[in-house]
Amino acid sequence: MSNAVPPGVANTLVSDDQSSMSAEDRELIARRERLLGPAYRLFYDDEPLHVVRGEGVWLFDAQGKRYLDAYNNVVSVGHCNPKITEALTRQASTLNTHTRYLHEGVLEYAERLLATFPSALGHVMLTCTGSEANDLAIRVSKAFTGGSGFIVTQWAYHGVTDAVSQLSPSLGAYVSRGDNIRTVAAPKSSRGRGVNVGEVFALNVQSAVDDLKSRGVKLAALLCDTIFSSDGVFPDPAGFLARAIDVVHDAGGLFIADEVQAGFGRTGDSMWGFARHGVTPDLVTLGKPMGNGHPTAALVMRPEVIAEFGRRSRYFNTFGGNPVSCAVALATLTVIQEEGLIENARIVGSYLLNGIKEIARTYDVIGDVRGAGLFIGVELVNAETNEPNGALARAVVNGLRRRGVLISATGPSANVLKIRPPLVLAKEHASLLIQSVFDVLQAEEPRS
Amino acid sequence: MSNAVPPGVANTLVSDDQSSMSAEDRELIARRERLLGPAYRLFYDDEPLHVVRGEGVWLFDAQGKRYLDAYNNVVSVGHCNPKITEALTRQASTLNTHTRYLHEGVLEYAERLLATFPSALGHVMLTCTGSEANDLAIRVSKAFTGGSGFIVTQWAYHGVTDAVSQLSPSLGAYVSRGDNIRTVAAPKSSRGRGVNVGEVFALNVQSAVDDLKSRGVKLAALLCDTIFSSDGVFPDPAGFLARAIDVVHDAGGLFIADEVQAGFGRTGDSMWGFARHGVTPDLVTLGKPMGNGHPTAALVMRPEVIAEFGRRSRYFNTFGGNPVSCAVALATLTVIQEEGLIENARIVGSYLLNGIKEIARTYDVIGDVRGAGLFIGVELVNAETNEPNGALARAVVNGLRRRGVLISATGPSANVLKIRPPLVLAKEHASLLIQSVFDVLQAEEPRS
Repeated sequence: MSNAVPPGVANTLVSDDQSSMSAEDRELIARRERLLGPAYRLFYDDEPLHVVRGEGVWLFDAQGKRYLDAYNNVVSVGHCNPKITEALTRQASTLNTHTRYLHEGVLEYAERLLATFPSALGHVMLTCTGSEANDLAIRVSKAFTGGSGFIVTQWAYHGVTDAVSQLSPSLGAYVSRGDNIRTVAAPKSSRGRGVNVGEVFALNVQSAVDDLKSRGVKLAALLCDTIFSSDGVFPDPAGFLARAIDVVHDAGGLFIADEVQAGFGRTGDSMWGFARHGVTPDLVTLGKPMGNGHPTAALVMRPEVIAEFGRRSRYFNTFGGNPVSCAVALATLTVIQEEGLIENARIVGSYLLNGIKEIARTYDVIGDVRGAGLFIGVELVNAETNEPNGALARAVVNGLRRRGVLISATGPSANVLKIRPPLVLAKEHASLLIQSVFDVLQAEEPRS
Repeated sequence: MSNAVPPGVANTLVSDDQSSMSAEDRELIARRERLLGPAYRLFYDDEPLHVVRGEGVWLFDAQGKRYLDAYNNVVSVGHCNPKITEALTRQASTLNTHTRYLHEGVLEYAERLLATFPSALGHVMLTCTGSEANDLAIRVSKAFTGGSGFIVTQWAYHGVTDAVSQLSPSLGAYVSRGDNIRTVAAPKSSRGRGVNVGEVFALNVQSAVDDLKSRGVKLAALLCDTIFSSDGVFPDPAGFLARAIDVVHDAGGLFIADEVQAGFGRTGDSMWGFARHGVTPDLVTLGKPMGNGHPTAALVMRPEVIAEFGRRSRYFNTFGGNPVSCAVALATLTVIQEEGLIENARIVGSYLLNGIKEIARTYDVIGDVRGAGLFIGVELVNAETNEPNGALARAVVNGLRRRGVLISATGPSANVLKIRPPLVLAKEHASLLIQSVFDVLQAEEPRS
């Protein structure tokens, strides 16, 4: 472990001083380094979290201490939701095979999932991870357009395959990037007060298209996370994506909406983040919360983009769309719909957003509070200079953890608190979170 | 659907004539095409298999008909093994999270898994699919060597990501391939009687290295499936890989052993296919049977190849190494070890191999029978010309299905029967399989 904190790495064990850790934790860390090697990271500055049990919005550590989980978007219907476990067990006890046999499970799920999309998005292909979904979207968009150029935002994260990691600048400079890739500034609503965010974003995308063209690279696609999570969480104003997509289409490219973060109801307005922008993507990638933690993901698309690919090639993913994964995904989607979790994300998200905005009135170190549903970003700055304050964000993340609340930070300066709880968060949990944020700021910045 | 059978596609629904199908199957096929699009394929010439239940070595269709599963290597400890389902349910009811928190599960599995490898292979990183494992191996080998050149066999299959699909020529010519990739002939023991298979293979690899070098491309790695499944199943003579690996190391490249097919005891000699060749790879990729159908996979490696990568970058796979996947993988490994399934693969595999060799004595259309453990290839040829007979292989695969036995075919001419049953196959099942192969040949080639 090194004491240097890489840029944009908001929440990583960095201390070599293990004196505050239990003997058990020290041993677990030593085993991790020995067995898993040096590419793995742990959360929290000087004492990682050793979890043993989860239930609803709560995680429990080895000492039995309870943590309000306001970070883990994957378990969107709650840790260890018994309805999901029941679906998992039932199908695993009956049959688990693959898509080269006929099975109703994948079709039932595909039907239910596609019903949540605009009718133009007619096909779904199943993968196991969001990385695989984005990687397949890259393959399909290259094949359909004949182009190889991609545009992503400056601090984007889309996944870890060889192709997708090149489209994930937030992984850092060690990941090499082909000359077929251009980055554009994220649509920064907070910094763009008085500026037309959509117009600026569209102009930046147009510049990138032109620059690719000048190098003889034809555009394949613009790939955006529709909540711009790793860039620092930029949801507003809803609708700003539309003009950039027109630019992309005019250049013969496709728009890939990465819904791995924003999808499955998180933004509170609709099932999908792109819907807030009034656009219909050409391809949509899904992941993290799709199976409430079970490895399942998908690519949804306009049928025309896969027609030639499907005629001339095939796609088979051994585990993708297997009956167990489909049963789990169907149970997750059913809980989101039947328990009104989109509505809950909207109502509790709004309550949470307003509660933190209230804190911001008395704390100048809060530069901006923004969000959609249960995805909230809280930008921390130096109160005098208004510069990003990553150190304070780290202190808040670690201070909250000591107070039994889990969040993280994001953005190129790692100064934006990332609040992304399971969708089953209730108002009482939101109140606890708001109070804890206030308490930590009070402790860190007592005179603000 | 088209009536044209693409090369190397051994077992695909090709008929537009649905008259032999039930109304229910016709409707399921129509729903698949409407929902999943054109890139998916179904098994069997003119009547796909509609499965509803699995148990041990058996699959059951919607009419309750039972099939001996001699194809699905993924479910290596048997369909719906209750020990695996129990581990799955127990952990899913307790906690499912990720590797940025401390958790014993991933460490316990890593320890148990690495104990089955030569001690030089000291680290393991967890992914969800074999494609992701091979993709990560590509990233790591490029970063370690500074090279970008890869060598694979002519009809290799390693996965479906953008990078890995380029290293999978068996996906067909529609998948474009970079100029940094060279293919070499598979080490064809059957065609090479009297030839030193290892020497020829090493010479071919040397030529590929030289050719890359002549184009200014530095070698990153040789990537081989250690049973050469898609090339047509080439296990013999054990040891033939060693010289090629020396060539690769001399050129500064790495050897990646793809154990997604041969691994976890299938070859009957040892846990890993490379062990038959007396070599220690630099990187090893695992997948399919690792979680008996649950999406989990891994990359095992020499620590030195990941040292710099890990220092300068990070790897996080949201679902990779989660507590549920690790519990399932641990249960699967435990069953393989405690129930002696490697030994079973060796004994029953040998019985099966000899049974089919016995048939070959009276059938000239069997050009060769080869295998290791429970991975067996039966090469079908035109008895007069000795040319590959893909049509007969299709007839045998479909004829066996009608007789209640599931296998497939492989190789560039799709003329090699691919027999790859769960490792819990007993002698009585092997006898049924041998008898069925005989019966089908008798029906297809009555006068041989």
